[in-house]
Amino acid sequence: MPGSKLTHFLSIKSLNRSSIESILARAESFFPVGSKAVKNIPILRGKTIANLFFEPSTRTKTTFELAATRLSADVININIETSATKKGESLMDTLKTLASLKTDIFVVRHNQCGASDFVANLIGNQVSVINAGDGRHEHPTQALLDLFTIRRSKGEFSKLKVAIVGDIMHSRVARSEIFALQKVGVKDIRVVGPKTLIPSNIERLGVKAFYNLQDGIENSDVIITLRLQKERMQSALLPSASEYFETFGLTEKILSYADSKAIVMHPGPINRGVEIESKVADGHKSKILEQAENGIAIRMAIMAMLTGTRV
Amino acid sequence: MPGSKLTHFLSIKSLNRSSIESILARAESFFPVGSKAVKNIPILRGKTIANLFFEPSTRTKTTFELAATRLSADVININIETSATKKGESLMDTLKTLASLKTDIFVVRHNQCGASDFVANLIGNQVSVINAGDGRHEHPTQALLDLFTIRRSKGEFSKLKVAIVGDIMHSRVARSEIFALQKVGVKDIRVVGPKTLIPSNIERLGVKAFYNLQDGIENSDVIITLRLQKERMQSALLPSASEYFETFGLTEKILSYADSKAIVMHPGPINRGVEIESKVADGHKSKILEQAENGIAIRMAIMAMLTGTRV
Amino acid sequence: MPGSKLTHFLSIKSLNRSSIESILARAESFFPVGSKAVKNIPILRGKTIANLFFEPSTRTKTTFELAATRLSADVININIETSATKKGESLMDTLKTLASLKTDIFVVRHNQCGASDFVANLIGNQVSVINAGDGRHEHPTQALLDLFTIRRSKGEFSKLKVAIVGDIMHSRVARSEIFALQKVGVKDIRVVGPKTLIPSNIERLGVKAFYNLQDGIENSDVIITLRLQKERMQSALLPSASEYFETFGLTEKILSYADSKAIVMHPGPINRGVEIESKVADGHKSKILEQAENGIAIRMAIMAMLTGTRV
Repeated sequence: MPGSKLTHFLSIKSLNRSSIESILARAESFFPVGSKAVKNIPILRGKTIANLFFEPSTRTKTTFELAATRLSADVININIETSATKKGESLMDTLKTLASLKTDIFVVRHNQCGASDFVANLIGNQVSVINAGDGRHEHPTQALLDLFTIRRSKGEFSKLKVAIVGDIMHSRVARSEIFALQKVGVKDIRVVGPKTLIPSNIERLGVKAFYNLQDGIENSDVIITLRLQKERMQSALLPSASEYFETFGLTEKILSYADSKAIVMHPGPINRGVEIESKVADGHKSKILEQAENGIAIRMAIMAMLTGTRV
Repeated sequence: MPGSKLTHFLSIKSLNRSSIESILARAESFFPVGSKAVKNIPILRGKTIANLFFEPSTRTKTTFELAATRLSADVININIETSATKKGESLMDTLKTLASLKTDIFVVRHNQCGASDFVANLIGNQVSVINAGDGRHEHPTQALLDLFTIRRSKGEFSKLKVAIVGDIMHSRVARSEIFALQKVGVKDIRVVGPKTLIPSNIERLGVKAFYNLQDGIENSDVIITLRLQKERMQSALLPSASEYFETFGLTEKILSYADSKAIVMHPGPINRGVEIESKVADGHKSKILEQAENGIAIRMAIMAMLTGTRV
Repeated sequence: MPGSKLTHFLSIKSLNRSSIESILARAESFFPVGSKAVKNIPILRGKTIANLFFEPSTRTKTTFELAATRLSADVININIETSATKKGESLMDTLKTLASLKTDIFVVRHNQCGASDFVANLIGNQVSVINAGDGRHEHPTQALLDLFTIRRSKGEFSKLKVAIVGDIMHSRVARSEIFALQKVGVKDIRVVGPKTLIPSNIERLGVKAFYNLQDGIENSDVIITLRLQKERMQSALLPSASEYFETFGLTEKILSYADSKAIVMHPGPINRGVEIESKVADGHKSKILEQAENGIAIRMAIMAMLTGTRV
């Protein structure tokens, strides 16, 4: 199977299209498991998944845990922040120790760019590493669950117009999203937001920048709204949450400029009344709750692929 | 089976007698599982129970987790306080997201009255909700495990004299207990405590109020002592812990006024030397440790009933 | 099987040689499980292990959890510090309650000497207790995994020269280690460290004390370096970390005085540049990562032995 030779799952940038397609196909086959009376399949029986979350997370951590559980794997949650570091052990030693314990997969979330690459380099191919978000760098499982959500709604990727709205500059989701959409053949990708939150050289990536929401989402098929981090509002980059909402908040009114069958997505957690209006978040075009659910199938697919490699 | 049509388990007040009886009967059938060499039965295999504890709890959380494990369910502990809320997500959005993940049961404990009703209303019948204690409102699984404990000791309910002693006003246990005892036919229910801790209109519920311990427990078959919250002692409602103990502490001496075969119960955790004397807590009339154990069987029964509904 | 009659596993001092040998043999039989595609064996299916960690721990807690998981037991992590004690319940009551829930094994770590003995006395033989470290008293599972590591490298125990280097006075590991090595027949045991960190009457235990590293490790086959607690450096017992390293830090250079096939061990977490040089910690003589892995097999063996007793 193409794409089945990976040891780690660290970034979208390093994946090729066939790997992505094979993960999406596998996720499709796992999707129905969540609706069965017995939600476990024995694919990862006897494997151990270690969750190493250095940043708080409900949604991502829970869906990884559910994904592992549905594959019949055992899950170990390791709270590194409150235990090992109290004794002053270096992170490197903690990781090497954990790797020696013959767990099969590390799921790593960290606020530093490149943290999961660092872990993968450190431990070689003893353990597969999945990047569950590293600083502003990438959030590749989020990008794939978004592709999965788009394909379940829209079918073909190549003719879609996709707008990514919000704080492009600081968003690992935006970065992974752009790479992922391009790899599966989306040609019309727009990034939309205030100038202070869009890198000046962004168009080198092959996307179009818009500093006006209406123009940016015009005729779009998919609108991905990003979470506005509170830190941005407190810094000089943004005037205030309410002013942001007035100019870049996704409302029902502005949504009328998009294609009439457009779907609305958001990686969560959402700030109602900041980047999105409640009517839109809860409306029939919103795929936000489906995204969370789809995250389980995608993470099952990635775990199955990685352990398949290693057997 | 009567009582098997519930989607949620939210309060004793909303249950009918046949539902209660059917849960007690089912708990009886599950009780021996804890003494077997292999303590798992496959009734909830492939189901996922999510523990949503907004209040700290050892006893209740552990027994829910053990109950789920003995039924072969998978358990996810979601620490909402330390993760999602850090990012400012609304509780409602966290809950809707979790509901979309196709877990089967939410076990909810919260310090606000009506919290679990709120959750149940929000998520409809996607997920079954169990109230594991909501503010001063109800603690229905505690009440059922207490009925279960009483029946295992005393057999028939209808002729029993039951005294509930302590802070009736602020106790969700007392409220659920009164409703539960009445539903199974107990006619002689007394509430006993200082005037400041007994609602003035309590007798409307069909119970008798006593402001003197000796009178209240006279000839009683069952004495349920409530935990005295420290906050009460710090407020103007109570003079001091030692004074409370002198007038309402359950001692061996005062216990002689109860029926000679009376049993003593307490929902735990106990304050030795405040609401109960150690000799009584550890004595042969005490059912306190049995209550904890019985909590597992009751919670197994409730979980089995709820998921049975939904298959 | 000799040694299979234990209810609790509390100290090395109370074990006899045949018990130790039988645990080591069993650990050897469990060791290959970690390298199989399916890492679970059904030996403890339907048993529940409760982790009661009153002190933070990553390595020990994780390996106990993995050991239980590999034996197909269910694991409950009970965070006593953040829950029960918030309500002011006495530890004794929490423990008695947990014991009433029919879990099979308590794994107890506590900063007080004798804590696990206390627990075992309290709960009798309802639940098996494993000491996972109690104050400065003992850390018996660490000592056995070290014996296991030594035997896998060196075969026979009787002719070995073993040096234990560091803070002998405050180390539960050192105490358990000395007892364990003696019970399996090691005759030449040296303790090495500054005078302030070696009890003056240590030689009564049948070991030799050295206050000079070179002399202490001369011709030794095994060097066990202990972790230097930061508290010691802050107190008057030690001048500074760098000065300690100069006189008692294990470097490649000083290691040349040991036997050319000597192995280096450390219970972890290591302080690089304090008690050990990175070149040594990461060198080919180091067994530090193997120790962590071996901890799983040893803990599997102990759990299997204890529950075997009780069936």
